[in-house]
Amino acid sequence: MARPQEFETTEVLRKAMYVFWSKGYEAASLTDILAATGLSKSSLYATFGDKRELFLAAFDAYRKGRMQYLQQTLNNGQPARQSIETFFRQGVAHSQDKTRVYGCMTANEAVELAPHDADIQRLVAEDFQAIEDAFTRAIARGQADGSISSRQEPRILAHFLLVGLQGLQVMARAKSDRARLEDTVTVMMAVLD
Amino acid sequence: MARPQEFETTEVLRKAMYVFWSKGYEAASLTDILAATGLSKSSLYATFGDKRELFLAAFDAYRKGRMQYLQQTLNNGQPARQSIETFFRQGVAHSQDKTRVYGCMTANEAVELAPHDADIQRLVAEDFQAIEDAFTRAIARGQADGSISSRQEPRILAHFLLVGLQGLQVMARAKSDRARLEDTVTVMMAVLD
Repeated sequence: MARPQEFETTEVLRKAMYVFWSKGYEAASLTDILAATGLSKSSLYATFGDKRELFLAAFDAYRKGRMQYLQQTLNNGQPARQSIETFFRQGVAHSQDKTRVYGCMTANEAVELAPHDADIQRLVAEDFQAIEDAFTRAIARGQADGSISSRQEPRILAHFLLVGLQGLQVMARAKSDRARLEDTVTVMMAVLD
Repeated sequence: MARPQEFETTEVLRKAMYVFWSKGYEAASLTDILAATGLSKSSLYATFGDKRELFLAAFDAYRKGRMQYLQQTLNNGQPARQSIETFFRQGVAHSQDKTRVYGCMTANEAVELAPHDADIQRLVAEDFQAIEDAFTRAIARGQADGSISSRQEPRILAHFLLVGLQGLQVMARAKSDRARLEDTVTVMMAVLD
């Protein structure tokens, strides 16, 4: 029974995404991508165009999935400070799970591609802005529900959380030990008190 | 007049380092490296071995230079809190200087190579440890000279500064705007009060 085309495309994109996320753009070979997706070269190219177009579609899928997860966690029904801490502690836990890809695809592409590719730089900047906006809303909610101190502007604290998150992603990618990451989250969260 | 071999090697390494730092390991082509160093393929290989060996030597040169700069700045005669802030504010200023390579080579290699290359993972981990140790000493000095609060262990604060530094490097690499970086440094420094 043939599966609907849309489902197949989503599945193929997800598999290609893991290859790019894990290996980086340059190091992801056509052989890697064909092996992961189970497609032939001709059907891959017929569906997605070239490697760059496949990458852009995979990166788009990554950002949508990660943003959905971030929004869900930041609005999980806990007081805002606790929602934010849950998001960071889960990130640390994920970084220790050897069945997962290490780090964050957006941080990876910020480092690998953004300096030399204006399109990727724009997509990375949009994603960082969207993460920062989500943190800003959560912090404003926390200042309203009393779980976060009102000493500092939400936007300034959101800048700090965004940058800290990227630092944790670099550390996760380098397989840093857990204590360093947990300590960092503890210090970061104390800034909200 | 022939220059001493040692000087030439240092110069060639410095030029190769900028290519790898700027482009990343995979994207740095032999053509790029030959153009930057002015060497022929045969003399490059005779002196340094293959691309990976040249990279390892260039990465070593980067880490030595960056560590020297870090140590000098953290011991610049100011109270420790101010020395640490000088280091971070200079980093932000450098990230806005278009004549410089964006970001930090160690953060780049943490992201690009560490997950798949045990040798690089070890070198990155050693470098992160050395940065963390330098921060720990500076924080202990600040707790002694009264410029840094003694509420928190130096090592825990050093974990936080190390991770924050890597986040700033990702942002610099992605050409993030300066306000985000300056705000982050302001919030980070307040943690030391």
